[in-house]
Amino acid sequence: MTGFRLIKTSPRTSARAGELVTPHGSIPTPVFMPVGSQGAVKTLTPEEVKALGINMVLANTYHLYLRPGIGVIEKLGGLHNFMGWDGAILTDSGGYQVFSLAPLRKVSDEGVTFRSHIDGSQHHLTPELAIQYQEALGADIIMVLDECPPHDDSLDKVKKAMERTHRWAERCRKAQKRPGQALYAIVQGGVFPELRRQSAEYLASLDFPGYAIGGLSIGEPKKVTLAMIEETVALLPETKPRYLMGVGSPEDIIEAVDRGCDIFDSALPTRVARNGALFTWQGRKNITNAAYANMEQPIVAGCNCYTCRHFSAAYLHHLFNAGELLAYRLATIHNLSFITELMDKIQGAISDGTFLAFKKEFLAGYRPTDEPTRLSQKQKWLEKRSMNQ
Amino acid sequence: MTGFRLIKTSPRTSARAGELVTPHGSIPTPVFMPVGSQGAVKTLTPEEVKALGINMVLANTYHLYLRPGIGVIEKLGGLHNFMGWDGAILTDSGGYQVFSLAPLRKVSDEGVTFRSHIDGSQHHLTPELAIQYQEALGADIIMVLDECPPHDDSLDKVKKAMERTHRWAERCRKAQKRPGQALYAIVQGGVFPELRRQSAEYLASLDFPGYAIGGLSIGEPKKVTLAMIEETVALLPETKPRYLMGVGSPEDIIEAVDRGCDIFDSALPTRVARNGALFTWQGRKNITNAAYANMEQPIVAGCNCYTCRHFSAAYLHHLFNAGELLAYRLATIHNLSFITELMDKIQGAISDGTFLAFKKEFLAGYRPTDEPTRLSQKQKWLEKRSMNQ
Repeated sequence: MTGFRLIKTSPRTSARAGELVTPHGSIPTPVFMPVGSQGAVKTLTPEEVKALGINMVLANTYHLYLRPGIGVIEKLGGLHNFMGWDGAILTDSGGYQVFSLAPLRKVSDEGVTFRSHIDGSQHHLTPELAIQYQEALGADIIMVLDECPPHDDSLDKVKKAMERTHRWAERCRKAQKRPGQALYAIVQGGVFPELRRQSAEYLASLDFPGYAIGGLSIGEPKKVTLAMIEETVALLPETKPRYLMGVGSPEDIIEAVDRGCDIFDSALPTRVARNGALFTWQGRKNITNAAYANMEQPIVAGCNCYTCRHFSAAYLHHLFNAGELLAYRLATIHNLSFITELMDKIQGAISDGTFLAFKKEFLAGYRPTDEPTRLSQKQKWLEKRSMNQ
Repeated sequence: MTGFRLIKTSPRTSARAGELVTPHGSIPTPVFMPVGSQGAVKTLTPEEVKALGINMVLANTYHLYLRPGIGVIEKLGGLHNFMGWDGAILTDSGGYQVFSLAPLRKVSDEGVTFRSHIDGSQHHLTPELAIQYQEALGADIIMVLDECPPHDDSLDKVKKAMERTHRWAERCRKAQKRPGQALYAIVQGGVFPELRRQSAEYLASLDFPGYAIGGLSIGEPKKVTLAMIEETVALLPETKPRYLMGVGSPEDIIEAVDRGCDIFDSALPTRVARNGALFTWQGRKNITNAAYANMEQPIVAGCNCYTCRHFSAAYLHHLFNAGELLAYRLATIHNLSFITELMDKIQGAISDGTFLAFKKEFLAGYRPTDEPTRLSQKQKWLEKRSMNQ
């Protein structure tokens, strides 16, 4: 059975240390989950992910439902077995992807009809099906189906989506049959404080084993994101884990930990890695910059990751410039190692009661970047070309 | 110092077992070198290459000269250090690439002027520069600069290129300053038996520490390739290693071993892997075939490679279909493991005096494929798209 144990709270901050207990091991919180949407953390084997000190990954029901299909994974013994991962898994319900990736969707109280972003085929998803699929996949933590409106929708529309999300959460819970999986509810309410409060309060009353904060970091200003987190967390039960969906930059994680969040996921660390943007304690640096062409030192001196222990910045720069596939992998290893080390430090600082000092020091030295997080046309071209050499 | 020791010859076949002795370890022959043109075996770390039982890789002076530049690698401590590889390295001189990749080349006795295939910049390569660059890179085995004409050139043109290759071989040897590196000559002569004999005889008279057979497997019929190998090998000294350049399919390697070749390199096993074509003892199979969508077994039952020990064919099929970068890596590991196992078996059979029986049995069960060896448009599109998920 999957549960949560609150270990330590702190004065003058909502930061807290805890532990997720799952059938696939215990995971100290605050924790960051790398994203393996299609059943693989991009470029890495399960052994490499494990070696990074990572004990939990996220996979997407939407992607796995479309390809290879839930039935294939069930036949192969469930998602852990299929992807060769014996750590914990959290599956998203597919709600967010249906509302962000799939074209031509039609939503009603009953469920949502959408077209595949891959081949245009028509599909239908209901709260009951979302649970059925996630039970077949067999993740340790599963999510309710939610409706996630755009960040600039009107209060009226966001309210309707929130209310539907609440009804769907109840139906998801009723549909749950398989024991041992923890089903988390998702707080919605967009950028409207009163809706966020209403959603948190209502879902808290239903007593789920965990609570996610959805519909944030989707285009709204950062100040608003943080305000919404505060409104929400204040009304969630202290003994339950809080999962801030889709947040994964070091500076955003540390602010959200300060506001009481325990679990994070985002494709950002791995996606920017493939674009050559590497985390350092001074901020994000792009390895394709000419400054690295001759650098004998690793990208982060003293970094204990495989990449920095074995290779110069000059070599990594060369691999990116030459479009070598190994580049994406070495950069992914570094960024996930950095985030894992950051989470370790955050956990340690909370335990020591020094989280606020740690946060201040970290943010003073860290310069977030405004580099593009999408892959550049040049990188895409290089990678494409590199396949045929 | 790099040398060669002939260990065992066989009756009724020219197959022989030997050992290359290098400053970076001893390598049993016959041996296959995977290609790391740009200082990396595509998708793999040096540790993974080593774990496959591979002790020698090939790198290309042409590619490394253009990017990152010889000076960068020299500054970083040489190619072994730059790419983090402590096994043996053989560098090609750049001749073949200049004549196959670079546009607008002009060749004279003095050397060759060409434009970069990357940015169109103009460059000049002479036998002396080819040696200077390879000495700076610091490989264990280096190659003379040769002129490699198209397979359908006239006898007159091929003869002129061969004679130039001979003059260049002598200049390369004179230019050699750095001790410890073995410089191999390259036999040319196209598809003309009399030229092949002339080239082998002449270069043999110069007593190089090793001999490559160049200008084959570039479009001529397979029967012709094998005939040219026979003409050449017959006139090369028995005590020197023979390196058949650019050959790497299981069926071609086994035929060339039978004809007395010791060293092989080719991008084929790694390139077809990225297209989903995996070696099995029954021939090449394409994992993207729908037949593998539900297969719980690995692609080769009983195969001891990392990929087959950990993952079902269904998972590999899914990774390829979904354009996951991990697919290319797992397939590369399998194909290199297969070729390495094949070379082990060949070495064992030669030692036991059973090579001809082994060859017969292998070829009886193996069905070479006529699948495309270039990446399909679909795979390119999938990989490109996968970068942004």
